[in-house]
Amino acid sequence: MSPEPSTENPALAAGIDFGGTSVKIGVCQGDTLVAKGDPIPTDNYKSAEDLIDAMVDQIQALCDAHPGVATVGAGVPGFVDFKRGFVHDLTNVPTWVNVPFAHILTEKTGLAAVVDNDANCMAYAEWRYGSAAGRENVIALTLGTGIGGGLILDGKLYRGSQFGAGEIGQMSIDYRGKAGEYGNTGAAEKYVGNAQIEEHAILKYANLGIAKSREECTPKAIAQAAQAGDEIARQIWGDVANWLGTVVSSIVWLLNPDAIVIGGGVSRAGKLLFDPLEKKLTSMLSPVFWENLEILPAKFGNDAGIIGSAALARDASVEGDAANTEK
Amino acid sequence: MSPEPSTENPALAAGIDFGGTSVKIGVCQGDTLVAKGDPIPTDNYKSAEDLIDAMVDQIQALCDAHPGVATVGAGVPGFVDFKRGFVHDLTNVPTWVNVPFAHILTEKTGLAAVVDNDANCMAYAEWRYGSAAGRENVIALTLGTGIGGGLILDGKLYRGSQFGAGEIGQMSIDYRGKAGEYGNTGAAEKYVGNAQIEEHAILKYANLGIAKSREECTPKAIAQAAQAGDEIARQIWGDVANWLGTVVSSIVWLLNPDAIVIGGGVSRAGKLLFDPLEKKLTSMLSPVFWENLEILPAKFGNDAGIIGSAALARDASVEGDAANTEK
Repeated sequence: MSPEPSTENPALAAGIDFGGTSVKIGVCQGDTLVAKGDPIPTDNYKSAEDLIDAMVDQIQALCDAHPGVATVGAGVPGFVDFKRGFVHDLTNVPTWVNVPFAHILTEKTGLAAVVDNDANCMAYAEWRYGSAAGRENVIALTLGTGIGGGLILDGKLYRGSQFGAGEIGQMSIDYRGKAGEYGNTGAAEKYVGNAQIEEHAILKYANLGIAKSREECTPKAIAQAAQAGDEIARQIWGDVANWLGTVVSSIVWLLNPDAIVIGGGVSRAGKLLFDPLEKKLTSMLSPVFWENLEILPAKFGNDAGIIGSAALARDASVEGDAANTEK
Repeated sequence: MSPEPSTENPALAAGIDFGGTSVKIGVCQGDTLVAKGDPIPTDNYKSAEDLIDAMVDQIQALCDAHPGVATVGAGVPGFVDFKRGFVHDLTNVPTWVNVPFAHILTEKTGLAAVVDNDANCMAYAEWRYGSAAGRENVIALTLGTGIGGGLILDGKLYRGSQFGAGEIGQMSIDYRGKAGEYGNTGAAEKYVGNAQIEEHAILKYANLGIAKSREECTPKAIAQAAQAGDEIARQIWGDVANWLGTVVSSIVWLLNPDAIVIGGGVSRAGKLLFDPLEKKLTSMLSPVFWENLEILPAKFGNDAGIIGSAALARDASVEGDAANTEK
């Protein structure tokens, strides 16, 4: 069912990685980022229309410099109707409500456009060209402020009935636990999100009589402390692995995937996180589920969004189901 | 993507519902159970071969009485390689280890055979002809000793990489919780399984100074007590709904389905379970996920296994991917 992990000379495609603070645009050929524009700060633009115009200018400049681009893909941090290329709303960008993004992109650039959730684009990049290339069933997680998730099932992106699938951060790890964004008890990202790791670390040190600032307790700082031999810091990663392993094991029991790909800022802790995570997963799964499962660090870092959205747009146009192919 | 919910005069197919204590066999035409043999008690047979011979005798008698049967499906309570129709092992039937069940069935009956997990057969019956007919994404649960689960995703059965998907009972609702069968903390079925509901009820009454026997605390007895106005019994169903709602909400966040179908003995509590479950789910989900979701009681009761396995075999043979079509 899987397409070939790579193709000879795949067509050029533009990719838009729409982040909470800036929009990054590039032109890709397969897994290669051929060119990249300057990041466009979202705060500089008062309306969705103005921001789209800035994106369109950059896309046109990139297309002029790299002839042959026929499609554009966008990964956005929020709730999208993939079929219509329509943005319902974006978590951290209040002006983006009910925007027919793909339609506008096509109208203004002449390119066939696809719009998807950013976690889906990351998952697609990792499955199409990255750590999990060629696997049939893949769960991709991005660990940062929250947990983003994208699912490749039976060799294709699974999006769910309202294109909302993959909300791993909202899954519960404790029926009596901390409330998530929707009052949902035990929401996983209320344990392993950036801010929650910081708070947990501050508290853990404080309980031992050690006062630590928030800056000393960022995931990055805790990773550095652990690498420098701080046993408490190492334990904090064990706690994170315990929470994360609980939600990941639930996903594995439900979906029996080949691979879990983990990316995002928090995952940069590397072995500090991955080693106790693997241990936790072994303790939570039966041999059949565990022995056939790979736990993989993501291949693509900051460029995953551009590469994935560009690949999605190109593949959709090849398969004839691009969201918006009229010009 | 979904096939039509019913077909005019679908071909006859035999279905085998392999339970922990008995095997039930029938001949189906679509959603209609045309004929059914006497249950075959599994304990009466010392080996898998002997039990299969008894099944084959019954299948042949049913086929003689109902000419036109060309396929046979079997739903078994355990771990199966669907592609090869091979039974790895069955939870409660120790003699069934590494049995090429589909191959033997075909060899002895001349029918194309398909073997799948029993929860998948139940899910297939409910999606093909039952409560969730025609929906694109459906999660089916069977509540009994444990929790069985079957997933219809993007209009077809999703089985996972080792055909192990749907182990909803092993998903965690508490990272510090009760250990499941594999040591997995917080395994949902250690809260909402038959025996666990009984234990919870005995304890809940005992804490109020009321001594109750295990017989007075079965899910059936607790449902009757609640219907008769026992407030504690009603609360027990609220507790069950709280645990079940936690794991179901996690599945909905992950897969964004159209419908959840709930069957099995524990589900016979009806509104006593479904009302607090819906309330719990509303509190755990965002509007988009909740408003488009149906919570449906299963249509087929004890016959779901026969109807589902027969339908799976017939559809597989129509689609040309039956596990074992050589005669």
